[in-house]
Amino acid sequence: MVAVVIGVDLGGTVVRAGAIDQDANLLAVSQAPIEAYLGAQAGLARIIAVIEKALGEHADWHLLGIGFGATGPVDRRLGAIQNPFTLPGWENVPVVAPLREHFGVPVRLENDADVAALGEYWAGAGKGVRRLYAITLGTGIGTALICDGQIYRGLDGSHPDGGHQIIDPMGPVCYCGAKGCWESLAAGPAIARQAREVLLDFPSSRVLDLAQGDPNRIDAHMVAQAAREGDALGLAVMEKASWYFSLGLVNIITLFVPEMIVLSGGVMRSASLFMPAIETAVNDHNIMVPASQVRILPAQLGDQAGMIGAAYTIYQNG
Amino acid sequence: MVAVVIGVDLGGTVVRAGAIDQDANLLAVSQAPIEAYLGAQAGLARIIAVIEKALGEHADWHLLGIGFGATGPVDRRLGAIQNPFTLPGWENVPVVAPLREHFGVPVRLENDADVAALGEYWAGAGKGVRRLYAITLGTGIGTALICDGQIYRGLDGSHPDGGHQIIDPMGPVCYCGAKGCWESLAAGPAIARQAREVLLDFPSSRVLDLAQGDPNRIDAHMVAQAAREGDALGLAVMEKASWYFSLGLVNIITLFVPEMIVLSGGVMRSASLFMPAIETAVNDHNIMVPASQVRILPAQLGDQAGMIGAAYTIYQNG
Repeated sequence: MVAVVIGVDLGGTVVRAGAIDQDANLLAVSQAPIEAYLGAQAGLARIIAVIEKALGEHADWHLLGIGFGATGPVDRRLGAIQNPFTLPGWENVPVVAPLREHFGVPVRLENDADVAALGEYWAGAGKGVRRLYAITLGTGIGTALICDGQIYRGLDGSHPDGGHQIIDPMGPVCYCGAKGCWESLAAGPAIARQAREVLLDFPSSRVLDLAQGDPNRIDAHMVAQAAREGDALGLAVMEKASWYFSLGLVNIITLFVPEMIVLSGGVMRSASLFMPAIETAVNDHNIMVPASQVRILPAQLGDQAGMIGAAYTIYQNG
Repeated sequence: MVAVVIGVDLGGTVVRAGAIDQDANLLAVSQAPIEAYLGAQAGLARIIAVIEKALGEHADWHLLGIGFGATGPVDRRLGAIQNPFTLPGWENVPVVAPLREHFGVPVRLENDADVAALGEYWAGAGKGVRRLYAITLGTGIGTALICDGQIYRGLDGSHPDGGHQIIDPMGPVCYCGAKGCWESLAAGPAIARQAREVLLDFPSSRVLDLAQGDPNRIDAHMVAQAAREGDALGLAVMEKASWYFSLGLVNIITLFVPEMIVLSGGVMRSASLFMPAIETAVNDHNIMVPASQVRILPAQLGDQAGMIGAAYTIYQNG
């Protein structure tokens, strides 16, 4: 018999399920678009189908449990997803009870940033690191702290949200209630917005070509690509965004002094554009805490981190 | 026999020692100016004298150990104080080994913000709170996190320094290397500096009277007193400082979601001037994390928190 755990990673667009053994090997994987607009009922049926496909027909497999990482916010006590932002209409959607009933095994629900960090701790860049901080830079900024192998939780088990720390109180208004929070200054949409704002100053910029002449189509990847090609607008916007990103990162170091910070997410594919600003900022803030000793590395597990970390919540808790 | 632990609290100006029983009762206390300029050798002799005075002549007392909280930075592994800032000349001064040899008991060295927070956890405002964050607002801003009764430590046991998180990157330069860190915007010296900077705009302000006409004598207490009396300069400066303070506090909530935040320190004696800004900021940033559920309270142990928490490090570790 092979003991396996299903790790589920539910994002705003795709749900993935992986069958994972106790050595963190991904034995099988399955995925499907979640199409949240079809509603929670249809979504749950799709999640069950994806899990069943990952499990397949293995007479020698023994399912120990299901770990479930979902785009936050989640309510761990109710075992429910509460997310009208990235999963429109999914407010107070129980997932733990239906999956437990359907599969007859323990189910654990966690925030997706937490399980991705836990995956890197178990099987990725942060193996055995006692203070591991994970930052995902993409459409938003997700953060998680793994403390001695355990997800750090705040009051009532809540998930802190470092992406919304205030970096510049004169900055733009964010949906989180803050002005100038990290996400509003350094995440993908902020990069695209800043590019649109300075378009007139750079009439010959590549960015508008990449967007096929339509400013509304500009996204962070186009800005980063233009920057890599030496485009002045791209370089200016990426320099500003990476400066803001590095300020938030320095705050994480000042407040947590983690042994390691792992970086992931779509915008981090342009890591080469961010690293000079990060290195400068770390060196400039090395007085009160040993900032330069913090290892800052790319995450290793990519899209699999969430599934692997979700599975680990079951192995970890027996 | 009465088992006692000595808790030492070494600040930049005063050293205090308390004899503390296992129920956190302060049985005896002694203190003296540290006069750091006399050098570490003289300082150590004075610390020993203060401890001996607190111990007194009690035939029925049995000394279990000495807990030592010192104004940071400290090197816990070397058992040494490394502080050329608030203890000029005290660089790499061993305290654990000399005290252990002199008194023949275990000695533990910790950062002063950490032991003060631990005191509040053991016997003050934060009894039994699983996520307790402590903020001391005075000449600087000290921070500490007590996680399930344990001091949170970063890499190599280092003490994070939340007082130097960046709040406004256009702010003043701090000795920590940052521009616009929390301490540079909201601590006592920042309040005094801001008052001096706007003196000409408020020619009839009470603040200059309180400083006997000498702008260089202005301190945060004068500004706060003037504000309480309705003085326009005092109110303007305290409003700005309390706004900056509240932004840093909201970041702590966003990044840690502690169950409780305890506030202490000289400037916090003017808590009534800070609380309105804090309440507004907490309400404005209650979307991503349950900020309004975080209890924000004054510390209860005052000047004794450091001694009591230092003693607890011995009781806690046997």
